[in-house]
Amino acid sequence: MSDPWHSAPIEKRLLSDMPKHIETLKSFVSIPSVSTDPAYKEGILKASEFVAAELQAAGLTEVAILPTSGHPVVTAAWRHAPNAPTVLVYGHYDVQPPDPISAWKSSPFVPDIRDGRLYARGVSDDKGPMLIPIAVAAAYLAEQCALPVNMVFLFEGEEEVSSAHLEDFVREHKETLKADFALSADGAQWRADLPSVTVASRGICALEVTVKGPGKDLHSGRHGGSVANPIQALVALLAKLHTPDGAIAVPGFYDGLDPVNPNEVKAIAAIPFDEAAYLAEVGASEGAGEAGYTLLQRNWIRPTLEYNGIVGGYTGPGKKTVIPSEASAKISCRLVPGQDPDRIVALLATFLEANAPQGTRVSVKRETGGTPAYAVSHNHPALVLSEDVLESVLDRRPVRVRMGATIPIGDIFKRVLGIDTVFFSFSTVDEDYHAPNEFFRLSSYERGMVAWARYLGKLGETSATDFFKIKP
Amino acid sequence: MSDPWHSAPIEKRLLSDMPKHIETLKSFVSIPSVSTDPAYKEGILKASEFVAAELQAAGLTEVAILPTSGHPVVTAAWRHAPNAPTVLVYGHYDVQPPDPISAWKSSPFVPDIRDGRLYARGVSDDKGPMLIPIAVAAAYLAEQCALPVNMVFLFEGEEEVSSAHLEDFVREHKETLKADFALSADGAQWRADLPSVTVASRGICALEVTVKGPGKDLHSGRHGGSVANPIQALVALLAKLHTPDGAIAVPGFYDGLDPVNPNEVKAIAAIPFDEAAYLAEVGASEGAGEAGYTLLQRNWIRPTLEYNGIVGGYTGPGKKTVIPSEASAKISCRLVPGQDPDRIVALLATFLEANAPQGTRVSVKRETGGTPAYAVSHNHPALVLSEDVLESVLDRRPVRVRMGATIPIGDIFKRVLGIDTVFFSFSTVDEDYHAPNEFFRLSSYERGMVAWARYLGKLGETSATDFFKIKP
Repeated sequence: MSDPWHSAPIEKRLLSDMPKHIETLKSFVSIPSVSTDPAYKEGILKASEFVAAELQAAGLTEVAILPTSGHPVVTAAWRHAPNAPTVLVYGHYDVQPPDPISAWKSSPFVPDIRDGRLYARGVSDDKGPMLIPIAVAAAYLAEQCALPVNMVFLFEGEEEVSSAHLEDFVREHKETLKADFALSADGAQWRADLPSVTVASRGICALEVTVKGPGKDLHSGRHGGSVANPIQALVALLAKLHTPDGAIAVPGFYDGLDPVNPNEVKAIAAIPFDEAAYLAEVGASEGAGEAGYTLLQRNWIRPTLEYNGIVGGYTGPGKKTVIPSEASAKISCRLVPGQDPDRIVALLATFLEANAPQGTRVSVKRETGGTPAYAVSHNHPALVLSEDVLESVLDRRPVRVRMGATIPIGDIFKRVLGIDTVFFSFSTVDEDYHAPNEFFRLSSYERGMVAWARYLGKLGETSATDFFKIKP
Repeated sequence: MSDPWHSAPIEKRLLSDMPKHIETLKSFVSIPSVSTDPAYKEGILKASEFVAAELQAAGLTEVAILPTSGHPVVTAAWRHAPNAPTVLVYGHYDVQPPDPISAWKSSPFVPDIRDGRLYARGVSDDKGPMLIPIAVAAAYLAEQCALPVNMVFLFEGEEEVSSAHLEDFVREHKETLKADFALSADGAQWRADLPSVTVASRGICALEVTVKGPGKDLHSGRHGGSVANPIQALVALLAKLHTPDGAIAVPGFYDGLDPVNPNEVKAIAAIPFDEAAYLAEVGASEGAGEAGYTLLQRNWIRPTLEYNGIVGGYTGPGKKTVIPSEASAKISCRLVPGQDPDRIVALLATFLEANAPQGTRVSVKRETGGTPAYAVSHNHPALVLSEDVLESVLDRRPVRVRMGATIPIGDIFKRVLGIDTVFFSFSTVDEDYHAPNEFFRLSSYERGMVAWARYLGKLGETSATDFFKIKP
């Protein structure tokens, strides 16, 4: 019998059990585990217990619900393949808030299957994808009483709130989390129509700048012309942060950037990308940003300085002739390799404070603990294996894509555990996972089962040492 | 008995009735008559009814609440002094929004007396001052069954929204509003420590600019660098409106300005003005504005372009990595003689629209019907009388000052009724009337009663013809 992936019986079992897996997922998404809102505290706890119970039922060991300063982390392990590689599986059981609830066609926490899609908050991000490795481990243990590789599972409850306490947790549990690499069940496929693997993500850092003028709000007639208007000052100050060409004008911002590999630039150019279709989807008349770069380059390999919010003075209906006493803006930067988040925040803060317009005081609320950019080595064997598996399941070699957004685990696992992370998620970016009517394709759920079974089966073929040796 | 002002018994009655007048004012300011926000519609109607009831109770005739396309105007009259001058009394019953409410020490619509000051939104602008002429007329009618002069009262409900429908109203009621001049209960005293009369005011025009980018809010990681950020675009656009020297950079803005009289510049320089004390009072570290002009010149005889509000993206606590789909700003300009409000609005709108940053659409909500600057003739007898009366009440000859702010009635009454307006208000600019913790000095309330009683008493001494003949 030809079984190039060493997982045929497992795949068969997983597919015949799909009705059961769908029921499990339906139970899981019925738990409202919204991490950002304290009102859902009970849902978070219930979801962590649900995950622990699934891990236990799968036959895994060391199952634990471990506290953090925020929401708990659920862990488990199986370490009985002495020579095989050890993989750290990552996922998260928390979900985005369901608002605006009125925009949902079915209740966000009452799963509903329509046209082969399961609709519910969190089903695509990340509850469906994170159940896959648990189901696959269960199938291996039921079929063969063993896993092909050593596995450590880490499911957090704070991914939707920037994984605020994950680094501390990983540092504290460094020994038990030891692995050869991390395989993430989170991190959506770039597009529904194009198989892809994500090989890099940008970092992030943030700050808030406030310009203060007069000590109180003033009448703009009585005082206009006499003293500084903080909105005018803020606008003048912020306008200095970009050049007319859309580059970032703050001295030193681009210092120390890792040189971009010309092959990567070529590879990005070769990716099929319909810019007009993308712009139509986001409702933009044209692309915009730093001159001299393509849209994908700007989004993937160039840093940005974005305004996420600005406010000052009267913003209600009608008008109010006021000179406000202050105005402020929330700024975040997406970072690329070579940029340290804290250095960039310090650079911006210094620039902003040094350029306070006449008659104003500028203060900056620096946010520490940003996330640097992350990239997996282009020839990492675990990455190449993910491509091989995807090709076998999707009948097409996936393209390598980057992510403009930030996934903190890549950097945390690299710095704290010294390992790389490969993204192996089966959700897709079009599944409205931060919006109403989030759904997960049941076909992706099925494909994910097969893919994870193959991945683990193939990975188990070689010893840890060999695996990292024989690959290019 | 020596009564040079012909009003001693009236003054006595007014002073002994002060507790009653304070209660009336407290009831009046308890009505939240915010004109700019439709949510306060009921407050506006209640306030108009309150004013009508006061006029009726005072013994005035022709009391009416008259509709406009906006908020109603309340009028009344007394026309039984055939040879005496007729004075048109102006005031307004609408108030500014109370925001930010959290900055108030007592609730904005629950009057609170602390240290001889009555705190409430609108108490200084203009509810306290506008009740004075009603109380004075009531006292004359109660004491003498007659007024010394003919009086027409006009109280509008849209002063805080640029008196948008007042001109149409005045045009429509031209005949019943006929008078020799207007005496305004609105238009605050320049300073608490220096008696003054206001002889000129700047004009105003306003607009709101909105920059639209993508069709929906986008994740700033997933899309940052790909499409325009409307806040960045707005900031870049607005920064073009001023030169680094603080002048207005829009071509044509300063075209056609009336030449400034060198004597007026000298007069302004001669006015006692402690710039450091002023800056300390408003809590500003230094003055700011157009280079090459003194603070009073910038505030009185130079036009400005002010931002009254700006908003876009996420403005709540914490952060949200969003590229908003739009951002907007509220702008108003203070105008000097020679500047037409509609022309300035058109000029700005054209400039803003023509400079839309890449990937954005700029739209401007033009506000028509702004107000040009206004100045009363320097030898107008009603102005000189106001100076005489103030000198008698305040024991010091008032200085002539200008107003950086705008009172639309000056221009409207001049153009439509052909009469001048003299400002005779007893509020003071330091009373925070467009800010939290607005207050009105009860001592000013009392002084205003005496001053209005004297003004009307003296005005009644001569016939209309004589009054305008004998004065310089």
